[in-house]
Amino acid sequence: MDTIGFIGLGVMGKPMARNLMKAGFPLVVHNRSRGAVDELAKEGARGATSPKDVAAQSDIVILMLPDSPDVEAVVAGKDGVFDGARRGMLLIDMGTSSPVLARKLARDAVARGIDMLDAPVSGGDVGAANATLSIMVGGSEDAFHRALPVFQALGKNIVHIGDAGAGQVAKAANQLIVALAIEAVSEALVLAAKAGVDPAKVRQALLGGFAQSRVLDLHGQRMLDRNFKPGARVSTQHKDLGIALALGKEYNVPLPATAHVHQMYNAMLAGGHGNLDHSSLVLLIEEMAQTRVK
Amino acid sequence: MDTIGFIGLGVMGKPMARNLMKAGFPLVVHNRSRGAVDELAKEGARGATSPKDVAAQSDIVILMLPDSPDVEAVVAGKDGVFDGARRGMLLIDMGTSSPVLARKLARDAVARGIDMLDAPVSGGDVGAANATLSIMVGGSEDAFHRALPVFQALGKNIVHIGDAGAGQVAKAANQLIVALAIEAVSEALVLAAKAGVDPAKVRQALLGGFAQSRVLDLHGQRMLDRNFKPGARVSTQHKDLGIALALGKEYNVPLPATAHVHQMYNAMLAGGHGNLDHSSLVLLIEEMAQTRVK
Repeated sequence: MDTIGFIGLGVMGKPMARNLMKAGFPLVVHNRSRGAVDELAKEGARGATSPKDVAAQSDIVILMLPDSPDVEAVVAGKDGVFDGARRGMLLIDMGTSSPVLARKLARDAVARGIDMLDAPVSGGDVGAANATLSIMVGGSEDAFHRALPVFQALGKNIVHIGDAGAGQVAKAANQLIVALAIEAVSEALVLAAKAGVDPAKVRQALLGGFAQSRVLDLHGQRMLDRNFKPGARVSTQHKDLGIALALGKEYNVPLPATAHVHQMYNAMLAGGHGNLDHSSLVLLIEEMAQTRVK
Repeated sequence: MDTIGFIGLGVMGKPMARNLMKAGFPLVVHNRSRGAVDELAKEGARGATSPKDVAAQSDIVILMLPDSPDVEAVVAGKDGVFDGARRGMLLIDMGTSSPVLARKLARDAVARGIDMLDAPVSGGDVGAANATLSIMVGGSEDAFHRALPVFQALGKNIVHIGDAGAGQVAKAANQLIVALAIEAVSEALVLAAKAGVDPAKVRQALLGGFAQSRVLDLHGQRMLDRNFKPGARVSTQHKDLGIALALGKEYNVPLPATAHVHQMYNAMLAGGHGNLDHSSLVLLIEEMAQTRVK
């Protein structure tokens, strides 16, 4: 069985690493802070001293890092993955990062005889824990098939979208659709509530028609329950929308509604709500309207 | 069986009137232009000369009119429904119109001993023809139960939302969610296409995750198929978003993303696209980005 290196043991990375061990993969782990490494070492993983050290011991290296600059530093920086990788290694970035960076790193990897996939996920920490993540994959057909047993230990809806970067492009599309759906449901429920109509009944009725969405279902219910425990954080959604807008800038695609909702999440950060679930955007609409849905 | 009066025999009203006849209700019909009246008269309906004349012959009167001013004129104007209605008649506005007007007319109706429901629908001309409309109802419990056999001849997902106006509030919420979902899917698919990724694959992958919606499914497919035959027209969506914004003004609820997408549909009207399906908003994003999803 391939030995897997796992770098980035945060809220998503740690349960994903555990699922790989559960599936029987030998695991080498690394994290910026040491606590998570020691924890997984007790459960059977080997700890490594640097990304280079991880790569030197692994057939496949998975990254689950917060943002694009982290990915670039861990892969191409000093004592990075590229420094330790052997030819034929497979590198998979499963965090959400820039599609432009994904394409650049994939080119650099190929030049070193390394395969690379971008394979960002959707489904949050619950999906990570239950191995039910959706996985959107960019890269070569061969690399996709080599990685498939690994993905099957982590998620359910696994789609090969296209060449290098295509997974990150799909994830950017996913995030902008989700964010705009959250804003739409927020505006709709606050409007109903302040106009004297039960927002729970409105949500229920609308789920039977063209307005149906998973966001109306799950995040709409969160808004009614005042349950803003993440899930996916405001700060993460803000970062992801920034990636979508940067992609729009790179390819000259104006994204006016995405730009708007990015600014709304900016206001949420300004309000100190960065660690709430992204459905808490309803709090901003409520504040603007001087009311509450519940 | 109650005799039903039906006023407004357009793309929605005509198939709905037919479904009522099919269910066995005696039908009296009226329309601004005479053609549709003559057509239904051949199929067994009685033609009437005015809204007053319809009301004088009916137990239940249904309105399916283009916009709020039409509703006000037909109900409260000269030779209108109120002029011909007997006490105990039930008046049902099934078009999409102002919730504020719905509440005013319901109060006026009660003062005349007439029951009134607002019961706007979702599902388009296909739902009207197949009797699969979603129906969102505002008004008293008694009136709702009296109208239920009529609604069951017209639709499937029939929900009593609340008191007078609640149906129109729910419909406004429905429309703003649908419009923002259309804009989101448009931005996402155009971004993917111009970044070199197959938008059909992106749509397919995203249907398995948190970005899932009926709009991504049905209207996303329309965008890929370049199928902009309505369905629901740009001009109708523009009108409906205006109703949502007017409701926001009435109750002091800022709706920033709804205001944005209303202006996008304004641009679609300016471009001469009023009679296309509302999913054609993608054409505007494509024009701004100088590209096509297909």
